[in-house]
Amino acid sequence: MAEQNYDAYREGVAGRADVEDTPELIAYYRSLEKLEAGALWTVANKIEPWQPRSESVPVLWRYRDMREHVLRSVDLVSPEKAGRRVIYLSNPGRREVSAAVGWLYSGLQVMHPGEVASAHAHSSSALRFIMEGTGAYTVVDGHKMTLGRNDFVLTPNGTWHEHGVAEEGTACIWQDGLDIPLVNALEAGFYAVHPDLRQAVTHPVNDSTATWGAPGLRPQNGDWNKRYSPLFKYEWEPTYEALVRHARVTDGSPFDGVLMHYVNPVTGGPVMSTIGASMQLLRPGEQTRAHRHTGSFIYQVAKGSGYSIINGKRLDWTERDIFCVPSWAFHEHANSSSSDDACLFCFNDLPVMQALNLYREEALAENGGHQTVAA
Amino acid sequence: MAEQNYDAYREGVAGRADVEDTPELIAYYRSLEKLEAGALWTVANKIEPWQPRSESVPVLWRYRDMREHVLRSVDLVSPEKAGRRVIYLSNPGRREVSAAVGWLYSGLQVMHPGEVASAHAHSSSALRFIMEGTGAYTVVDGHKMTLGRNDFVLTPNGTWHEHGVAEEGTACIWQDGLDIPLVNALEAGFYAVHPDLRQAVTHPVNDSTATWGAPGLRPQNGDWNKRYSPLFKYEWEPTYEALVRHARVTDGSPFDGVLMHYVNPVTGGPVMSTIGASMQLLRPGEQTRAHRHTGSFIYQVAKGSGYSIINGKRLDWTERDIFCVPSWAFHEHANSSSSDDACLFCFNDLPVMQALNLYREEALAENGGHQTVAA
Amino acid sequence: MAEQNYDAYREGVAGRADVEDTPELIAYYRSLEKLEAGALWTVANKIEPWQPRSESVPVLWRYRDMREHVLRSVDLVSPEKAGRRVIYLSNPGRREVSAAVGWLYSGLQVMHPGEVASAHAHSSSALRFIMEGTGAYTVVDGHKMTLGRNDFVLTPNGTWHEHGVAEEGTACIWQDGLDIPLVNALEAGFYAVHPDLRQAVTHPVNDSTATWGAPGLRPQNGDWNKRYSPLFKYEWEPTYEALVRHARVTDGSPFDGVLMHYVNPVTGGPVMSTIGASMQLLRPGEQTRAHRHTGSFIYQVAKGSGYSIINGKRLDWTERDIFCVPSWAFHEHANSSSSDDACLFCFNDLPVMQALNLYREEALAENGGHQTVAA
Amino acid sequence: MAEQNYDAYREGVAGRADVEDTPELIAYYRSLEKLEAGALWTVANKIEPWQPRSESVPVLWRYRDMREHVLRSVDLVSPEKAGRRVIYLSNPGRREVSAAVGWLYSGLQVMHPGEVASAHAHSSSALRFIMEGTGAYTVVDGHKMTLGRNDFVLTPNGTWHEHGVAEEGTACIWQDGLDIPLVNALEAGFYAVHPDLRQAVTHPVNDSTATWGAPGLRPQNGDWNKRYSPLFKYEWEPTYEALVRHARVTDGSPFDGVLMHYVNPVTGGPVMSTIGASMQLLRPGEQTRAHRHTGSFIYQVAKGSGYSIINGKRLDWTERDIFCVPSWAFHEHANSSSSDDACLFCFNDLPVMQALNLYREEALAENGGHQTVAA
Repeated sequence: MAEQNYDAYREGVAGRADVEDTPELIAYYRSLEKLEAGALWTVANKIEPWQPRSESVPVLWRYRDMREHVLRSVDLVSPEKAGRRVIYLSNPGRREVSAAVGWLYSGLQVMHPGEVASAHAHSSSALRFIMEGTGAYTVVDGHKMTLGRNDFVLTPNGTWHEHGVAEEGTACIWQDGLDIPLVNALEAGFYAVHPDLRQAVTHPVNDSTATWGAPGLRPQNGDWNKRYSPLFKYEWEPTYEALVRHARVTDGSPFDGVLMHYVNPVTGGPVMSTIGASMQLLRPGEQTRAHRHTGSFIYQVAKGSGYSIINGKRLDWTERDIFCVPSWAFHEHANSSSSDDACLFCFNDLPVMQALNLYREEALAENGGHQTVAA
Repeated sequence: MAEQNYDAYREGVAGRADVEDTPELIAYYRSLEKLEAGALWTVANKIEPWQPRSESVPVLWRYRDMREHVLRSVDLVSPEKAGRRVIYLSNPGRREVSAAVGWLYSGLQVMHPGEVASAHAHSSSALRFIMEGTGAYTVVDGHKMTLGRNDFVLTPNGTWHEHGVAEEGTACIWQDGLDIPLVNALEAGFYAVHPDLRQAVTHPVNDSTATWGAPGLRPQNGDWNKRYSPLFKYEWEPTYEALVRHARVTDGSPFDGVLMHYVNPVTGGPVMSTIGASMQLLRPGEQTRAHRHTGSFIYQVAKGSGYSIINGKRLDWTERDIFCVPSWAFHEHANSSSSDDACLFCFNDLPVMQALNLYREEALAENGGHQTVAA
Repeated sequence: MAEQNYDAYREGVAGRADVEDTPELIAYYRSLEKLEAGALWTVANKIEPWQPRSESVPVLWRYRDMREHVLRSVDLVSPEKAGRRVIYLSNPGRREVSAAVGWLYSGLQVMHPGEVASAHAHSSSALRFIMEGTGAYTVVDGHKMTLGRNDFVLTPNGTWHEHGVAEEGTACIWQDGLDIPLVNALEAGFYAVHPDLRQAVTHPVNDSTATWGAPGLRPQNGDWNKRYSPLFKYEWEPTYEALVRHARVTDGSPFDGVLMHYVNPVTGGPVMSTIGASMQLLRPGEQTRAHRHTGSFIYQVAKGSGYSIINGKRLDWTERDIFCVPSWAFHEHANSSSSDDACLFCFNDLPVMQALNLYREEALAENGGHQTVAA
Repeated sequence: MAEQNYDAYREGVAGRADVEDTPELIAYYRSLEKLEAGALWTVANKIEPWQPRSESVPVLWRYRDMREHVLRSVDLVSPEKAGRRVIYLSNPGRREVSAAVGWLYSGLQVMHPGEVASAHAHSSSALRFIMEGTGAYTVVDGHKMTLGRNDFVLTPNGTWHEHGVAEEGTACIWQDGLDIPLVNALEAGFYAVHPDLRQAVTHPVNDSTATWGAPGLRPQNGDWNKRYSPLFKYEWEPTYEALVRHARVTDGSPFDGVLMHYVNPVTGGPVMSTIGASMQLLRPGEQTRAHRHTGSFIYQVAKGSGYSIINGKRLDWTERDIFCVPSWAFHEHANSSSSDDACLFCFNDLPVMQALNLYREEALAENGGHQTVAA
């Protein structure tokens, strides 16, 4: 049997652990293990790296590859047997926790006209981004929302929610985004199936938008003290218009073009406690500069085509493709078109980074702010 | 010469002051006066009333009366001589402090094409509500905003601001709303004339709306930590649409119909620290119930016609009329039209009541919630 | 009968109103008055001064003068007839509103052993600062607090409260501080006498201090969402010790020496929404520099003797004396003793200035930061 | 080679995934894997459990066992070689991440008189709790604090900090508490060694306590907008006194006895963004009832002896022992002494649970709230 190595993480730098294994020390370490203890210096350099080392890798999920597999699931399983009929995105570095990147889960769900998934509630916060089809709807705590392409809808943690497609609709595909891996890791996840498997719609359809979706206005009867946005649906059209209008008066960010965060209108803060979301517009031909920051990011191409370079790896994307940026990975985006703008939807765990005071960012200084693409 | 009376406020109620003047006491009171002091029981019942007694009275300023006087001021004084060419509204109970109601000032300002008022800044918070004309604009800290009918614009305290009308415009009239009387009473008012009398426009025209006026979206580069809304202009069209849309999904308030507060999109709170504003819609034929609350309110009829009953006094209003509701006065509103909705713009000192923990309200319980109109 | 003058406030400065009366204008002004209106330029320079002009004047109330008058009130009126047997401080510039300075009320209350004032509640926020005697107590919403010299106790707005002196105590005198004039001016004052004239003590004596008075600690069961501090009593000893300890590690403020604000331990903010309070220590021989700021301040000398210079007027004070600093008045303080420190208790309307975004301050630049004392 | 199983997590409950492997499905799953994807229903029941399943187990680290090993490390490694000479607590369920429980790290550090560990900074938040010895000190961003037994000191994330023992002191042992595993898992950890390996002491010794450690008082010059408490040291004596005083006026919590949270005096909130701490007192003979909640907790016995029952496992503890409570584990505490009180220091990730809206708790309903101890 091979000897265990205790000095694998030595660094010859003042202030870091640099203790070589000796028989005496090894015996000491083993006696510590019997007490459910260990010597910090054997692991210190491993658990306190100089900077974040993400386990995730940049991945591009092409929609032209994913779509047929997603559609095929309709023939293979029913929503009743599957619970939810979803193909999830599995980052090679995060297979163990079923994450698309970091602690974020994402999947593609398909539903046929007349189908509906059973109502449930969980501690995870969730969102959907509609990719194709007509007639999709979501019900959140009795509020029903009709959904179209590029609409973004919340199903916050603790709410009863269910999804379906109207009889007169077409097959719908949407992206789910959740913090399931995070909530599990934090050992704080609860799950409940609605006692009736369906919830009643108790408010006028789309009342959330009609109540909370007005610019700079708050309803008189709008008391709201929950920890998530009462605006559950953010429609594509006003969002795109807002970006176009904003683009006329701003240079935007050198790293992100013209970017707007979806916010809780009651607080101006993120839409949910653990997940933030944004939509950004890259002007025709725009090529941003590289920066990196803590937090994990999942993008979906809402409009146009182009490419992103992530830690030196170039990913070419077109509408509906999905890709991820791991924590502390340099990234820059480019719109390949010289005539049309491109839009990227994004969800991320920025609210976690900010709430826990762990956000940090850094621009790439060298080479005009652009990475060298790996061969 | 008449003797001074010290026992004018006696009340024969346990727990209240009830001390009769005697020669000995009067002598005592006079000796206190020499020490810059007094006996509380001689004034206690006066300064601690059982409930608020407003000095203001309900007033209706009819636009058909005011308009010609406002227009005439153009011939009488120049903006240069007048500083600002404004006719202010003077509540009979508040003449001493030039207030329209409570501690709120309001005036009607007129400007001809090509005219511009000099740039200045003050501790007072200010707003404008456009009544008629085309080509009006306001500049706030280098942000220029073009203004149309029923648009609502902020000039928050401490900002450099100026108003004008474009050469190609028409004569414009707008309502000014300020907290001048409050700031004066609090002995906290500063005033400055801009060194150049004009400020440069340093941002794209209407950039404030293009940056902050999107529903549920916050610009990436939008750091803002000032104590007022960065959205300086709230346009009429999206506001009216928001009310109509909201009216489809809500019964509204029994006291106010469908009411939405203008808010600071960064915080969800009031647009300025001392002045709040709202727009409300009364459905055809709608007649609200009476309630009363602390705080002073000034209304302008943005659309339609109807009447309000304020402490038993009926005021019939039509578009552009202005009226006020004093603190703790019962008030109810009615839309006289059976076919068209009516809209009331309002500004008020609700943020003061709330910040100082002094807000209180009460519904009228008797008579189905409706006041008897005084003969 | 004398003609009314409309051009009394003219200023020959660009950007200010400068309109001379003419017969035509006077006729115009009179027609406006009939419409409950006026021309802004006739009052603009009055209501928008260049900087605050306080109506209050600096006053020193010497305790050696006041004390005998306060004690004499015991013989003249009973607490039952007087409601509260208090001699209030009346600023010559604020007699109309019974204020000691600005919108702040203050009075000296005396109570004999066994006496108790009836329980009541009001919209005004109140505090007491104990000047002499033993056995005083206050009950706030069922919490009874025993009080000693230099203790500071809150009776926040809306709470039931009553004051008394134990049978075994001695005659007690304390200073009351309230925002009665402000709440009245804001037309938001309500007053209620307790139905039983006495309230039951429903918590252990001094439980507020035992629950909330620990440095850096919050009780597990301490949910508190009221708008005022749950710590109702701030005792003199730990306050003085804190100042002495803090003085060892800080130079303090050049304007205030070593000053600590009493705070709400739940929020770190002011003790009540409208009234702040502080205690400051001036080292032996310390002479601060002059500054001025918005807000009104009432001081009581808790320890030692010295003088303050307020807008050029020197006030010499000793223990128990009370004096006031009006808004925007330059002020500086000096400890006359070369061996003992001096302590000033202060309450003020700083929370109002801050909540309404009206706080501003300025140091005196000339003459080494010291005022010239008026002859 | 064994076939992979995809249906290991099936549950025969409506609303849950219940899909049996078939050759067709297995082929489908494999084609998904090639796309870096998977079928949600193969993992859904695993990653969305009905309630939290902690990987950690309850552990008691007896000081009489640990102490000699800790002291022996002095002979085995120098602080220079070790970086920090610490024996860390390793939960059998969390060895991979070097955590004592959940995502919390803890270790016992020993230092001899005259020793000092090099100054460093990291994204992790850290605390120390002094166990024995005299002369220990910590320097945080230039603020030096002297430390005694049961003192609790913060070294918040991002601060330069170093620890040492004065020449005239004795060997000191303290407990370190950090969120290293969490920060690593969130891929947000940065580490820096101070360029000089030592930082200068730039403030008077213990100035943090003298500035911020006064009950209900905030220093005038105390601007503080960092995300952690400016009070870096919480001394044992005032903490214990506060508990004893509070115990006189409260029954305390049925689950925790008399418990007080250490708080940031500026906000009333937790001392750091990711770690909270508390001290609780169990009266002689007190036996609390069981409850469970999300979040991981590490206790150190500051005084007395007794036992805790955690998920049915009884742990008998005495002064200086350390034990942990995993997330969602039922736990109850008992003081074995009939004459002396017992005190438990605790640090935990409650601020994370609360910031991310994941806190939930539940009392044990059956058996009078007491668990059955496993044989």
